[in-house]
Amino acid sequence: MDDNAAYLQRLEALRAGVDRRLAELAPRPGTAPDRLVEAVRYALLAPGKRFRPMLTLLTASQFGAAESVALDTACAFEMVHASSLILDDLPSMDNAGLRRGLPTIHRAYDEATAILAGVGLLNQAYAVIAADPHLTGELRAEIAGRIAQSVGFSGLIAGQARDLFDRDQLRDLPSIDRLNHEKTGVLIMAAAQSGARIAGASDAAVAAVGEFGWRAGLAFQICDDLIDAEGSAESAGKDVGQDAGMTTAVSLLGVEGARAAMEAHLAAGQAALDSVGGCDLVAGYVGRLFAGRKAAA
Amino acid sequence: MDDNAAYLQRLEALRAGVDRRLAELAPRPGTAPDRLVEAVRYALLAPGKRFRPMLTLLTASQFGAAESVALDTACAFEMVHASSLILDDLPSMDNAGLRRGLPTIHRAYDEATAILAGVGLLNQAYAVIAADPHLTGELRAEIAGRIAQSVGFSGLIAGQARDLFDRDQLRDLPSIDRLNHEKTGVLIMAAAQSGARIAGASDAAVAAVGEFGWRAGLAFQICDDLIDAEGSAESAGKDVGQDAGMTTAVSLLGVEGARAAMEAHLAAGQAALDSVGGCDLVAGYVGRLFAGRKAAA
Repeated sequence: MDDNAAYLQRLEALRAGVDRRLAELAPRPGTAPDRLVEAVRYALLAPGKRFRPMLTLLTASQFGAAESVALDTACAFEMVHASSLILDDLPSMDNAGLRRGLPTIHRAYDEATAILAGVGLLNQAYAVIAADPHLTGELRAEIAGRIAQSVGFSGLIAGQARDLFDRDQLRDLPSIDRLNHEKTGVLIMAAAQSGARIAGASDAAVAAVGEFGWRAGLAFQICDDLIDAEGSAESAGKDVGQDAGMTTAVSLLGVEGARAAMEAHLAAGQAALDSVGGCDLVAGYVGRLFAGRKAAA
Repeated sequence: MDDNAAYLQRLEALRAGVDRRLAELAPRPGTAPDRLVEAVRYALLAPGKRFRPMLTLLTASQFGAAESVALDTACAFEMVHASSLILDDLPSMDNAGLRRGLPTIHRAYDEATAILAGVGLLNQAYAVIAADPHLTGELRAEIAGRIAQSVGFSGLIAGQARDLFDRDQLRDLPSIDRLNHEKTGVLIMAAAQSGARIAGASDAAVAAVGEFGWRAGLAFQICDDLIDAEGSAESAGKDVGQDAGMTTAVSLLGVEGARAAMEAHLAAGQAALDSVGGCDLVAGYVGRLFAGRKAAA
């Protein structure tokens, strides 16, 4: 087996480990009302890249921690992400029909179940962090705080509110970048930084990983906009053409300009990682992921 | 001023202190989209008893901590409670029009704003705990864990799902008690126990405070059922007559039987407090509160 095959196998083993642990950390049948448990498991365990947990695991590993130590934290970030997808897709929000190639929860079940599953998954992320036996109390509180900052009134929730209510005020690239950062970047940053913190990385390294996450988040969102503008629902696994008439990086910069902005963010993120050295695992993973996404866009 | 007047003045000073701190801990205009900030402040700062934070403050004080040390934790419990009211009131849940004497958030604003405000307030509770400078990391993590257990798939969220989907399976008192415990008791328990833990109370004392909270929660819910069956929307400050046709303690036991069950829970809760001694503050506050509520029922 050559190096590249071994590397891919390692990534896939990590991803599969996240899936196994998520299945353990999700509520089990019999412990809560069946309909709710089914809906939560449907949303959380649907096949996905597990991008945020992979970042947590890879940064932890990169800075010297065993991946097993960061596994529950990694899963908590996936729970937060799954929660945000459920809530963003609701009829009163984006009213989406398709997610990860499957009907959205409010379509497969109903709206009340979707709301309870979404809130329940966010809450479960905190339950997992608070009970994580691998972390000191200080670190559990710190990571809970990082999640809370990335979800709250300067993170996902603010971004979703801005997207819903203030879209007409978003006319230039800085305000679009802020929206994309709130909606995507802050959680990616927190996932990557938490892995580094678990491994005891220096403040400078945590800051560099944060810049990398910030840039990756912006690139990610531009890539999503490109997929929405150019891709098919089949290849995207979710509704496309939702952004028609909205101000996005694509509408402001054109397709080629948006691609260039995405590449610039990826390069700047890479430079941040390079500044602390030895982040080949993280950089390689994200580079590979974007290669696949860019093909879809 | 006699003892009673001084006692009432002290309670009111504590309650007003909670209100002031909630206003500081809520998102401020300019920090997140205006509509969301307004809605969150509307829901969180509407006049209320602040029952859960008062329990946290009074148990902390009772076991020897300065109330100021427990104030942010107390406020976090009010945020969780306010969040649960917003979400329970949603059109897809109880579809309530009136709460704390005011239009519910989804009526005063809109459904998406209500969902984001509800999720945002739950998340803000964790942000407050994670950043609480009065607590050690261990205690911050422990209290976050207590909140997570009381909200999650064996707490508020499970109770709301059971109430919505499994009502027809609730035909006897034990299953009604379990529902009421999930919907009300677990959070009251956690609020009281967290105050005791902040003050370094013994495990036995924390357990006794927990039993008191559990019993108070059950009594509270029966009192609510009595108000729903017999009270007016004006005196209740929320919709009444919502339980018609549902199995509740009142439908199973009749009005007099339900009153007797409520009194039995209050007496058992008092006995638990008496077993650890010196909980006059807590017992006096809850006794006074129930005297007022029983008058409304």
